[in-house]
Amino acid sequence: MDNKKPLLLTMGDPAGVGPEIAVRALGGQAAVPDVVVVGDAEVMRAAAEVCGVSPEFNVVDERVIDETVVNGIDDGCCEERGEIPKGRRIINIIDISYPNGASRFPKGVPDASCGRAAYSYIIKAIELTVAGKASGVVTGPISKESLKLAGINYPGHTEIFADKTGTNDYSMVFLLDGVAVAHVTTHVSLRSAIEMITEDRVLRQIRLLHRSLAGLGIGKPRMAVSGLNPHAGENGLFGDEEIKEIVPAIKRAREEGIDVAGPLPPDTVFNRAFKGEFNGVVSMLHDHGFVALKSRDFEHGVNITVGLPIIRASVGHGTAFDIAWKGKASCESLLSAIGAARNLLTYRARRDG
Amino acid sequence: MDNKKPLLLTMGDPAGVGPEIAVRALGGQAAVPDVVVVGDAEVMRAAAEVCGVSPEFNVVDERVIDETVVNGIDDGCCEERGEIPKGRRIINIIDISYPNGASRFPKGVPDASCGRAAYSYIIKAIELTVAGKASGVVTGPISKESLKLAGINYPGHTEIFADKTGTNDYSMVFLLDGVAVAHVTTHVSLRSAIEMITEDRVLRQIRLLHRSLAGLGIGKPRMAVSGLNPHAGENGLFGDEEIKEIVPAIKRAREEGIDVAGPLPPDTVFNRAFKGEFNGVVSMLHDHGFVALKSRDFEHGVNITVGLPIIRASVGHGTAFDIAWKGKASCESLLSAIGAARNLLTYRARRDG
Repeated sequence: MDNKKPLLLTMGDPAGVGPEIAVRALGGQAAVPDVVVVGDAEVMRAAAEVCGVSPEFNVVDERVIDETVVNGIDDGCCEERGEIPKGRRIINIIDISYPNGASRFPKGVPDASCGRAAYSYIIKAIELTVAGKASGVVTGPISKESLKLAGINYPGHTEIFADKTGTNDYSMVFLLDGVAVAHVTTHVSLRSAIEMITEDRVLRQIRLLHRSLAGLGIGKPRMAVSGLNPHAGENGLFGDEEIKEIVPAIKRAREEGIDVAGPLPPDTVFNRAFKGEFNGVVSMLHDHGFVALKSRDFEHGVNITVGLPIIRASVGHGTAFDIAWKGKASCESLLSAIGAARNLLTYRARRDG
Repeated sequence: MDNKKPLLLTMGDPAGVGPEIAVRALGGQAAVPDVVVVGDAEVMRAAAEVCGVSPEFNVVDERVIDETVVNGIDDGCCEERGEIPKGRRIINIIDISYPNGASRFPKGVPDASCGRAAYSYIIKAIELTVAGKASGVVTGPISKESLKLAGINYPGHTEIFADKTGTNDYSMVFLLDGVAVAHVTTHVSLRSAIEMITEDRVLRQIRLLHRSLAGLGIGKPRMAVSGLNPHAGENGLFGDEEIKEIVPAIKRAREEGIDVAGPLPPDTVFNRAFKGEFNGVVSMLHDHGFVALKSRDFEHGVNITVGLPIIRASVGHGTAFDIAWKGKASCESLLSAIGAARNLLTYRARRDG
């Protein structure tokens, strides 16, 4: 085994599809380099049973994580080295369990105990990565409602990571088919979102997306800003946020040398980007960007958080309570997220070394 | 030539892609049954030149439209009948032109004269169809801004058709890949749209979509209602319009026997519909439904207006000023719209006779 630090994968909400996609990605057909799950071993075993896979679970000690991780890839080399017999699948896990974990959690519904558990996996993963024990974190899906039921008032992963690493200037960027999308507003009501569309916030997202695209290796990114209103307000006919806030932000970004078009109509800008016109789009609303991305491809989207001191990538979907614990969830997005985390690690290593 | 009444195609805004897609669809490679353009012959000739096609234009008298229309299909039969030599393409047009039309209109920008002209084509097409001279109307793209510059204060085609035919209970439904989408709000600012999400309006759209699906030949439609807020409000965490207005509307629709799920998150409901779970989706915002539809497929989407006394279908896209008069516009959506109008005609004929 080499000396690379492991990537941590938080199991996500025990009631959602997180445990299933984790066992599928790590214990199923796909070859995944050494990833360590931070979650509940009992729940993971139950998920494996639901998914019809039977990996072995290697509970690792978080204090000596880099020495105890067993690589689950069955690439034949392990067999030569006498470490893992051919055909064995091993899932490394830092077990944060409470007594009778698997039977205690409900399935497919928001629940306080699930919120508390999901949060504890995230906190542990952040601590270990900040302490230099791991190379980064890939997060499984959580339920904001479960968090709230548990009295944990973060709107999502991104805010937890920002808070726990003392980061102010961060952004969640979504990646799909060569297009990166940053949102000016995400997990707030539509009413609040409109109030949050200000020149400064829009400019901040343009800059962050520009930086992210560089981080992903794109030298001279071509970017677009989507409007807020239908047809981007059609020159003031359907709302004036474009004229008052978005146009001035674009003007300032251009003065900084950023190649950015807009504001363009929300219903056409993403299509133009996917056709190759833009590398990135700044979206005003959660359900401009995510509707475009998920309508195009539900399974391969990936989230990264830009601006954090540690690498963080995430599956693009949620807990999918409606199909959870039925053995139906696809692990494609999780495999893409693990891939994106590795890309960012490579970029960071190149930049730093 | 048979006795079927012709379908009218309004040319749309002279400054947009309407004239180009019309000459492409009717005078290019595709075989299109007898359609009569309502527009400006001079502008159409200029568009044909830009697109590199050279159809003949047959200016028809609107009073005897059904007797003077020449079928542009080159199916070989015409040649046998000695009517049209093989290879000739003929575009029938009701010419509503002003002196020096083509040189007078600007290109690629909103303009009062274009708004006035586009509006006159629509009015003429509605009059002829209501009078029984034509079977229905397919509309080319118009600019709401040009209309406004011309002092014509309709937000879009749908409202013009409703007003001129004295219709109150109508709805625009968008069709793509077997999924029909109805919107509770369309061409209004996002601020106004939120205020317009009421139980009654949502219920009205559920009923209209249900009726539309029957009109399109779907016996027992399965429908979904999208939420307004991110994650459909996540049970009240991000806005309460779902709880206050949308859930009660769904409950009432179910009591009427309509099979309708929701409110579902805007960023996943469309994907689920396209995968076959639903035949139709009621969308709260223009840029939920249209972002989903246009991100999936920009060229084949079609609009129909349900509830009017006359058939009306439309291209799914706008004037596309940015690519207008460059010979680049695709006529795929227009061909789909003509096809949808013909489907509705067939349905209506079956129902009525």
